[in-house]
Amino acid sequence: MTFLHGIAASNGIAIAKAYRLVEPDLSFEQKQVDDTAAEVDRFRQAMSKSKAELEAIRERAKVDLGADKAAIFEAHLLVLSDPELNAPIEEKIQSDKVNAESALKETADMFIMMFEQMDNEYMRERAADIRDVTKRVLAHLLGVQLVNPSMIAEEVIIVAEDLTPSDTAQLNRQFVLGFTTNIGGRTSHSAIMARSLEIPAVVGTKTATEEINNGDLVIVDGLKGEVHINPTPELVEQYRKVNEGYEAQKAEWAKLVNEPTVSSDNHHVELVANIGTPKDLKGVIENGGEGVGLYRTEFLYMGREQLPTEDEQFESYKAVLEGLTGKPVVVRTLDIGGDKELPYLDLPKEMNPFLGFRAIRLCLEEQEIFRTQLRALLRASIYGNLKIMFPMIATLDEFRAAKALLEEEKQKLLSEGQKVSDEIELGIMVEIPSTAILADQFAKEVDFFSIGTNDLIQYTMAADRMNQRVSYLYQPYSPSILRLVKMVIDASHAEGKWTGMCGEMAGDETAIPLLLGLGLDEFSMSATSILKARSQIRNLKKSDMEKLAQEVLNMQTTAQVIEAVNAATK
Amino acid sequence: MTFLHGIAASNGIAIAKAYRLVEPDLSFEQKQVDDTAAEVDRFRQAMSKSKAELEAIRERAKVDLGADKAAIFEAHLLVLSDPELNAPIEEKIQSDKVNAESALKETADMFIMMFEQMDNEYMRERAADIRDVTKRVLAHLLGVQLVNPSMIAEEVIIVAEDLTPSDTAQLNRQFVLGFTTNIGGRTSHSAIMARSLEIPAVVGTKTATEEINNGDLVIVDGLKGEVHINPTPELVEQYRKVNEGYEAQKAEWAKLVNEPTVSSDNHHVELVANIGTPKDLKGVIENGGEGVGLYRTEFLYMGREQLPTEDEQFESYKAVLEGLTGKPVVVRTLDIGGDKELPYLDLPKEMNPFLGFRAIRLCLEEQEIFRTQLRALLRASIYGNLKIMFPMIATLDEFRAAKALLEEEKQKLLSEGQKVSDEIELGIMVEIPSTAILADQFAKEVDFFSIGTNDLIQYTMAADRMNQRVSYLYQPYSPSILRLVKMVIDASHAEGKWTGMCGEMAGDETAIPLLLGLGLDEFSMSATSILKARSQIRNLKKSDMEKLAQEVLNMQTTAQVIEAVNAATK
Repeated sequence: MTFLHGIAASNGIAIAKAYRLVEPDLSFEQKQVDDTAAEVDRFRQAMSKSKAELEAIRERAKVDLGADKAAIFEAHLLVLSDPELNAPIEEKIQSDKVNAESALKETADMFIMMFEQMDNEYMRERAADIRDVTKRVLAHLLGVQLVNPSMIAEEVIIVAEDLTPSDTAQLNRQFVLGFTTNIGGRTSHSAIMARSLEIPAVVGTKTATEEINNGDLVIVDGLKGEVHINPTPELVEQYRKVNEGYEAQKAEWAKLVNEPTVSSDNHHVELVANIGTPKDLKGVIENGGEGVGLYRTEFLYMGREQLPTEDEQFESYKAVLEGLTGKPVVVRTLDIGGDKELPYLDLPKEMNPFLGFRAIRLCLEEQEIFRTQLRALLRASIYGNLKIMFPMIATLDEFRAAKALLEEEKQKLLSEGQKVSDEIELGIMVEIPSTAILADQFAKEVDFFSIGTNDLIQYTMAADRMNQRVSYLYQPYSPSILRLVKMVIDASHAEGKWTGMCGEMAGDETAIPLLLGLGLDEFSMSATSILKARSQIRNLKKSDMEKLAQEVLNMQTTAQVIEAVNAATK
Repeated sequence: MTFLHGIAASNGIAIAKAYRLVEPDLSFEQKQVDDTAAEVDRFRQAMSKSKAELEAIRERAKVDLGADKAAIFEAHLLVLSDPELNAPIEEKIQSDKVNAESALKETADMFIMMFEQMDNEYMRERAADIRDVTKRVLAHLLGVQLVNPSMIAEEVIIVAEDLTPSDTAQLNRQFVLGFTTNIGGRTSHSAIMARSLEIPAVVGTKTATEEINNGDLVIVDGLKGEVHINPTPELVEQYRKVNEGYEAQKAEWAKLVNEPTVSSDNHHVELVANIGTPKDLKGVIENGGEGVGLYRTEFLYMGREQLPTEDEQFESYKAVLEGLTGKPVVVRTLDIGGDKELPYLDLPKEMNPFLGFRAIRLCLEEQEIFRTQLRALLRASIYGNLKIMFPMIATLDEFRAAKALLEEEKQKLLSEGQKVSDEIELGIMVEIPSTAILADQFAKEVDFFSIGTNDLIQYTMAADRMNQRVSYLYQPYSPSILRLVKMVIDASHAEGKWTGMCGEMAGDETAIPLLLGLGLDEFSMSATSILKARSQIRNLKKSDMEKLAQEVLNMQTTAQVIEAVNAATK
């Protein structure tokens, strides 16, 4: 029995067999062969095994993921049967007397390089197909097994170095009970995804892929951030009881679904949800969300071949606004760039993408993309309570420029006879230190602020939140972060405006008492965190939390702040 | 006659012929050849031309740069005469009937890949040698000219995409009168280097390498940030006059070399210099520097094969302290990582190096490296007025940890019977927003602050200062930056401590009035900027600048601030 400690990324307990989502070792030696006929035969066998495997994957993908996702495997099958690729490999085996692995790799590399250099998106994608197929054939030649997450057909816990959004998209939610990864933190994509899927997860274990073998029984404790490998039957039993207790507590929280979010001394705040697509609305309503505090529109632009049209966007925005029947919906305009790329936009590689050309910076330059989104939003505005916010605003000039574009599109729509709501609030994300420091000036011109703590913390501490080596500096409770939060809230209130928060911090148990004390008006979080947060806030007294907040602002270290919160709320 | 506009990176006027430091196009087509004997002959000729060229370069490098820098060309010559590399190329031409370019490239690529994969620094360096030599032979095969900056033997203006520190090291200062680059800003390495060498430079022209041909007559106007290509004789004459005026002004400033830096209402500030090596001391003294505000110790660690020993470091620190005869010397401990790499440290590649594992973060983990530097500094402390500062401090915990290590080494030295000064001031760089915001707490424990504006601005605005696409956000005069500067200065004064500034902003003509008004105690800049700054400050009234500073703190945009400064100081 082994034990790993990591970061609790998504609540709950999962117990199942491990499925390692880890690339096998595909290295090989270049060798001379004498019997080239036998080598060609070995190559053909690997090809036909790959073909059978791909056909099976394609069929399952059609059922589980839909025809569009299955198309990628269709493309792979086409590559496999392409004589332009196969013939030179067999020739190379015969003429150079090299092993099939070398002949395959060298030939494929040549084609990949050729296709990648073409100035044509379609041909560059073919390079990616050839790379994938080569890996599969190589695996068969070497007798190792590639991972095929879409083939999972029993309940498992995924064990991986990290999970990308596309990995997660391929997982069959029915069978994946939980996951654990080597890297990542509470704000990494894998963690956010786990909470949105309500799958228990422990990330940042550092060694999960080393310690866990395929088929090991694993307990993922997403409450404490622990992973147990091949636990004793007693421990399994113990965890089943913990899980029952957790389920019982969730049932208690569920009773608050229609209750208001008020502190014990009757101060009301709004608990709203972060969503990515209209599909997430169901979770918002089931969990008693009072609206949407962050609609991430990036997902409309991702996993596709070209930009979404104005009408496609309009339909999504309308669906969300109608689905929430008049409750507030804060839509964030396109936040792309940085770690989020769009293959069809062809953005330059940057040395520090988190400090680069992204979000509003890109939208103000690529105005057609931005205007299309603004038009779709304006047209949808009459179907509900729309608020628009711009991401990554660093200067008032940027806000004014973005607002001017919105105003232009509004006037165009009106002159075309379209209806546009006159009550759209216009706000900004506060996620850049400069903007928090100058919040008093911004508050004169914006309708609201939404503090994006994930980025605000990383910039304020100058520590990449995805970089394990500096993760100790990602400190949400640092007095410096809390001072910035206070500056923003106070600035908005002085102008009669309001402040929300849509970073991970808004749903964090230790942060909530402080944020209530600092006067935060709106807390936006994963839908699945709302009921727990409501329960917590109903047990806190705002006047006490105000005193607590005042105290911690003058503390020196994060450790002191955490201690003070624990003492005040235990 | 063409005109380019860029960023004035280093003062002065230069007029000379252009020398393009631009890699030629080395692309070629793979071709079949019938006469393989002739092709082998063509290859051998390219080899012997390369050999003759390298020998000439080596000889000149020995004279101009010294034997150690010439050793690299010796290594290249060894590669050229290595039969293990040459024989397979000739064989390939003959057996595959391909042109020499293809045979050379494919064979070399194989060796490069092989060497690069070896877990051995020496072999990886051989890969770099092969790559360089291949380029040279390829250039001869294609009949194009490689650039050889060390071969420059007449007065020129360098035209380049950008200049790396190693490019600059190879330049013969006697012949390089100025330079202009496509990319970069006032704080890029090339700009800092130009000021330190006192070479006029205009960076960020975007198109210099496209517009300027080898041999074009070029005027680099480092005062206004303009480049004139093939100017009229009248313009050349005009510029000679401007230059005379500039030289006359410099002569005026030179009279202030022994004068104090006092405002017109008699407020004294310190003007000190940023240096990189003991060699820079001469410039500090000649330019009337009142000490050193930033001794960048990285240069001790760069351009070598292993870490400098304690004794090597001791000698450098001692030389600087003695050279300044009791004037203050602020030494910054090792600031490596980010964009500054050490080949022998083998740091992991990071996605956002500017937000990564660098400076004090690295030193607190690689303690042996840090302790060695601290011991060298402590031993040198008795030879002058030493102040030590730690870079990239984000939390009080980090400062305390660094201070504890210094204290431990001090006690060890004392117990070994060594002498250590008891009057070493201990400060921190304020270059992370968190630290500026919490300056009141830091001020209780540090002896002084030095504001590093280059990094502070890029983190506060979340804009990589090396990234052209977001350079519009690098705003030193933003009210948010000025508010942070004020927080730091006020916090230090409240505890009876002092604040300096060692970023580029400290020597900036527009910033100086504001910094004087905000109460900055020490301005650290390129030695060559000191006399001009002294002249400026002697003509400013501090009480007026205080009022100006107070006003701009409540402004909304950078443009408003610049306008206010211009109005108040014109």
